[in-house]
Amino acid sequence: MSGNTFGQLFKITTFGESHGEGVGCVIDGCPAGLELSSNDIQKELDKRKPGQSKITTTRQESDTAEILSGVFEGRTIGTPIMIFVRNKNQRPEDYAVLKDLYRPSHADYVYEAKYGFRDWRGGGRASARETIGRVAGGAVAIKFLKDKAGLEFVSYVEQIGDIKADVDYREVMIENVEANIVRCPDQASAQKMTELIEKTREQGDSLGGVIVGVVRNAPVGLGEPVFDKLSADLAKAMLSIPAVKGFEYGSGFASVTKRGSEHNDEFYAENGKIMTRTNNSGGIQGGISNGQDIYFRVAFKAPATIGKEQRTIDKKGKEAVLAPGGRHDPCVLPRAVPIVSSMAALVVMDHYLRQKVSKS
Amino acid sequence: MSGNTFGQLFKITTFGESHGEGVGCVIDGCPAGLELSSNDIQKELDKRKPGQSKITTTRQESDTAEILSGVFEGRTIGTPIMIFVRNKNQRPEDYAVLKDLYRPSHADYVYEAKYGFRDWRGGGRASARETIGRVAGGAVAIKFLKDKAGLEFVSYVEQIGDIKADVDYREVMIENVEANIVRCPDQASAQKMTELIEKTREQGDSLGGVIVGVVRNAPVGLGEPVFDKLSADLAKAMLSIPAVKGFEYGSGFASVTKRGSEHNDEFYAENGKIMTRTNNSGGIQGGISNGQDIYFRVAFKAPATIGKEQRTIDKKGKEAVLAPGGRHDPCVLPRAVPIVSSMAALVVMDHYLRQKVSKS
Amino acid sequence: MSGNTFGQLFKITTFGESHGEGVGCVIDGCPAGLELSSNDIQKELDKRKPGQSKITTTRQESDTAEILSGVFEGRTIGTPIMIFVRNKNQRPEDYAVLKDLYRPSHADYVYEAKYGFRDWRGGGRASARETIGRVAGGAVAIKFLKDKAGLEFVSYVEQIGDIKADVDYREVMIENVEANIVRCPDQASAQKMTELIEKTREQGDSLGGVIVGVVRNAPVGLGEPVFDKLSADLAKAMLSIPAVKGFEYGSGFASVTKRGSEHNDEFYAENGKIMTRTNNSGGIQGGISNGQDIYFRVAFKAPATIGKEQRTIDKKGKEAVLAPGGRHDPCVLPRAVPIVSSMAALVVMDHYLRQKVSKS
Amino acid sequence: MSGNTFGQLFKITTFGESHGEGVGCVIDGCPAGLELSSNDIQKELDKRKPGQSKITTTRQESDTAEILSGVFEGRTIGTPIMIFVRNKNQRPEDYAVLKDLYRPSHADYVYEAKYGFRDWRGGGRASARETIGRVAGGAVAIKFLKDKAGLEFVSYVEQIGDIKADVDYREVMIENVEANIVRCPDQASAQKMTELIEKTREQGDSLGGVIVGVVRNAPVGLGEPVFDKLSADLAKAMLSIPAVKGFEYGSGFASVTKRGSEHNDEFYAENGKIMTRTNNSGGIQGGISNGQDIYFRVAFKAPATIGKEQRTIDKKGKEAVLAPGGRHDPCVLPRAVPIVSSMAALVVMDHYLRQKVSKS
Repeated sequence: MSGNTFGQLFKITTFGESHGEGVGCVIDGCPAGLELSSNDIQKELDKRKPGQSKITTTRQESDTAEILSGVFEGRTIGTPIMIFVRNKNQRPEDYAVLKDLYRPSHADYVYEAKYGFRDWRGGGRASARETIGRVAGGAVAIKFLKDKAGLEFVSYVEQIGDIKADVDYREVMIENVEANIVRCPDQASAQKMTELIEKTREQGDSLGGVIVGVVRNAPVGLGEPVFDKLSADLAKAMLSIPAVKGFEYGSGFASVTKRGSEHNDEFYAENGKIMTRTNNSGGIQGGISNGQDIYFRVAFKAPATIGKEQRTIDKKGKEAVLAPGGRHDPCVLPRAVPIVSSMAALVVMDHYLRQKVSKS
Repeated sequence: MSGNTFGQLFKITTFGESHGEGVGCVIDGCPAGLELSSNDIQKELDKRKPGQSKITTTRQESDTAEILSGVFEGRTIGTPIMIFVRNKNQRPEDYAVLKDLYRPSHADYVYEAKYGFRDWRGGGRASARETIGRVAGGAVAIKFLKDKAGLEFVSYVEQIGDIKADVDYREVMIENVEANIVRCPDQASAQKMTELIEKTREQGDSLGGVIVGVVRNAPVGLGEPVFDKLSADLAKAMLSIPAVKGFEYGSGFASVTKRGSEHNDEFYAENGKIMTRTNNSGGIQGGISNGQDIYFRVAFKAPATIGKEQRTIDKKGKEAVLAPGGRHDPCVLPRAVPIVSSMAALVVMDHYLRQKVSKS
Repeated sequence: MSGNTFGQLFKITTFGESHGEGVGCVIDGCPAGLELSSNDIQKELDKRKPGQSKITTTRQESDTAEILSGVFEGRTIGTPIMIFVRNKNQRPEDYAVLKDLYRPSHADYVYEAKYGFRDWRGGGRASARETIGRVAGGAVAIKFLKDKAGLEFVSYVEQIGDIKADVDYREVMIENVEANIVRCPDQASAQKMTELIEKTREQGDSLGGVIVGVVRNAPVGLGEPVFDKLSADLAKAMLSIPAVKGFEYGSGFASVTKRGSEHNDEFYAENGKIMTRTNNSGGIQGGISNGQDIYFRVAFKAPATIGKEQRTIDKKGKEAVLAPGGRHDPCVLPRAVPIVSSMAALVVMDHYLRQKVSKS
Repeated sequence: MSGNTFGQLFKITTFGESHGEGVGCVIDGCPAGLELSSNDIQKELDKRKPGQSKITTTRQESDTAEILSGVFEGRTIGTPIMIFVRNKNQRPEDYAVLKDLYRPSHADYVYEAKYGFRDWRGGGRASARETIGRVAGGAVAIKFLKDKAGLEFVSYVEQIGDIKADVDYREVMIENVEANIVRCPDQASAQKMTELIEKTREQGDSLGGVIVGVVRNAPVGLGEPVFDKLSADLAKAMLSIPAVKGFEYGSGFASVTKRGSEHNDEFYAENGKIMTRTNNSGGIQGGISNGQDIYFRVAFKAPATIGKEQRTIDKKGKEAVLAPGGRHDPCVLPRAVPIVSSMAALVVMDHYLRQKVSKS
């Protein structure tokens, strides 16, 4: 009931605190027979690891994944897959000063109120370090869906602060995303975004943005009426990522000003395959995938940790001043791209298994 | 696994098809001792029933709720509460022509693909009529949270098509919302929205819009790290409502262009109560309620059923023309307001119970 | 969390109190495409209805099942199936005297302690009348497994009080079970059991016994390591039936005195089919079905309601005398036979669906 | 859906294979604020570790528990507790011969059929080594329930093969159980059991037996109608333990021959506390704890691995001879005692949390 598990059939439970022994996940429900190695995991983890470029935090961590159960002779055996990443570059002493302070727009206060007690070292469980477990689990889902059904997950940065890239979601390839450190497939915009992030860091401030997620080749029929719509589960998955403030799929908020006659996606058939001429539905109708590309947008706020002094209070309600933060990301989006893909893959994988029992 | 249940501790399962015998819900997990009568349910159902005003569908249904279990001598007894609403104004023959057609942007095609078979009468399970069960269940949650903890749920229409009302979420009262048939607390905008809806209906078209949801007096500590954040569960709840395309809470998508230093909500204490000077967090930090007002926005697309001919295909992939729709809503938002409140109440109620087991 | 739902993929939620408006269930997760009519349900319900013979309670209830959702044109459509049985022969006034008394070995006291309040009319939710919902749901599972996979569920009375029938579980046919009112396939023992029940009722007393459950033609592979073993879920299912005190499968408690060398079931292959020469395993090894007959035994205690005065206390702890019970069963076993089959079918159905996602 | 998680609010997921990197568990839902150290875990693990006495397997493993998340400054913080035990004394080569054989009454065949593939090293996931995770998790539950509510869990060996000890469950103390290597509190019987086990091992054979579990000081109100009765969840918990064939609580199977008038437990009140004069109910009425001692019996079959040649088949269905087993337990009961206590504690802990939300 504590909310550390995601999924119904393909279940992932993450564990670990930012400055504890390590972080990781247990995946329960991965079908037997998938080829899987720690490289498959590491590849995704490397995209979210700190210190990977000049625009991320300067903390250096290798974030090395160990698969400690569930794989035998290079294949999954249907038992829980436990993946562990030991914490290394911990400096809890960096955080000692935060022990009694409530950082603005952080989870310090609510954790203290909820649990009567908290691990104040680097955010503890509320740290984005927790998402390592998600990316590890997502890597398994990505591998499975690619190997067994040809699905592809592509996520990319569309906007950082005021800079919005001009990108058609249908044309983005992973190579273009990985071609720059911002992970924006529009290389010109990527350059501007990089400069903005560097400048903002110098100013002691931080930036938000938008990540777009795309799922290609999803079969028709994923999603369960009425609560577990594919769109609903994607929304939950994205809003569960730290710093996310909004989600929309297909036409999203822009649909609001469209008439029904403009917005409806006309069906047609080609070589026996049913398609739609437009895709305002974002590949999901009635909560169920219709075979078109699934795409959605995720809004991230600027990180709460900034390089400026801030006013706040301590545990006793006394006014206090919070010193500028230490090693942190001025903008989380470049490192959040693999997290968005991972969460999307976890959702799709779960529904991929769930739809196997729809018909008799 | 079929997605008809929502909630972990306060669980609602809805059932029923648009043109079957009836619709309703089973609520499992309502604590014993709540005073509850069918009036408490009916009051909310009346806000979503068809035919309530000139801007909704002209179908007339009384939608009368019967509580068939779980209540004894006017109080809940801790056992499942089953609420049933018999379908009355059914005209399945209106839909016979749809038996073999796939209506654009409806769920016909995906249901057929997923189940190999579908109830084509009025959308069957995919009909918004299913939300009757949600509103009935939400009414119980609203009653519980009001009686036992003083919470208040207020939802209202903020935008219809291009008309956006000027409303401060902090000042909206239910009376102002219920003061007009659009359920927009800005009476001048409401008048314009009404006119727009009427005009659009005459044009054989339909409209989308935005509903804002507000939760007042929520205690600190609701929401579970890391997947079952209060914000994540609200997102899922909202995206599970038919026609919803987007969700944002607090500063939402607008946060994207704000720097961290602008966006952070400064803490202060007043008479021992911890508050924030701004509320970009929307009452939720780290996924957990912080005692400030919770507010969020929900984007609805225009209904897919319109009063115009449309091109489509039939089950065999053959081109076909879909005749103009019959009795339908040109804009679902006025009737969706109680659905948004209900879903919010279901989420909050669930977390209200869940947080009882956080501390030892 | 309130325990009214059973199953993971094929989920049944029962609702209703003994003297409320009615009882029933919602089944969520039945695959689309199963032919189903209310007759399929009624057939099983008739086996458990009161007043069916001279050895059951004299209460007369028709217990008529209505399918109110989830079936269209005679087939399931993948949506929740709600089945309702209206209560008819209610005489709450019979129970008014029990309002403040705690009947020995009944649930009155614990319900009052747990919920602070209870429906005292005929046991309320704790009444065996709740099992109507289970039998209705079980009927759907029995139908599915028979139609789609040829499984057969046979349960029968093996022992009543001291009278133990001489029956080989491998040879019992439903016709033999239904050939007498006790539901014991050994007709001579059945006659003695009938006489014992009648005599015991005259003495104002009640009787326990043993029911054997058999599942034939179950495929290999049902059951999930490590907690959701098929045997573990059967145990839970059986112990959830009112009055059940014990469960064993295969060699059961008798295995305790057998050496490993005697107890092991030797494998052999015949025409490519793998079988075991003995079946001490009861068709389940490592918690997973092995293709042999599954069989198990369930111990029922004598009903707590008897036709004699009993000493007890009231809600205030004051000593009191409980008058002899009214219309009740002197022995529940004949009517419990369909309940055992239903619960077994619910377990097997759930695992039948679950094993569809074991391999990739 | 893979069955590796137990519990609803206090959830334990075990992972790991017999000859993989290690085994362990994640506990999700432990309330914050419990004092917990690895010693609390180790103490229980030591009772089940191999090689602890002359009557267990001769394999030597230290089974050292590491708490890798969820505890900060000696207390739980409300986040998942991950406990890992690295495998050490692995000799997979011992098992190479088993790669293609199906050992009688083992899970080899069903795993291969279910997953299409299996870890054949020492039973893989089906090995009793998996129960390390359960005992680790159970240790947390035992600690919590003792510290916060004074509950006590005592389990003991009552019978080995034909030797049945004469023990009154009400009088057993943990010290008496731990006073001998069999874990039977009747010291004379324990001596005979030890001799029997030694003799049976010499004969190349194995033995079953009965373990009794007792829960003292459980509050009134644990257990949820109707499916999640405390007795039903205990049954499932016990039947999920490897080698268990039966479960009964209170009067159990012996109740079958008792009349209702004999079996009913008369209520009385003493100093405001409600009690029963007899305890045939085993502390559970209507599936809910009534404040009396909870007690139950668990039947274990003799281990399938024996020191004798056995006939069997290989994967291709060809007849084969299985050589005598290597290092194994001739009788699992002494080491299963902590497993029974652990599973009982997991059940009770879960219901302890669940009952917190029964009343409003």
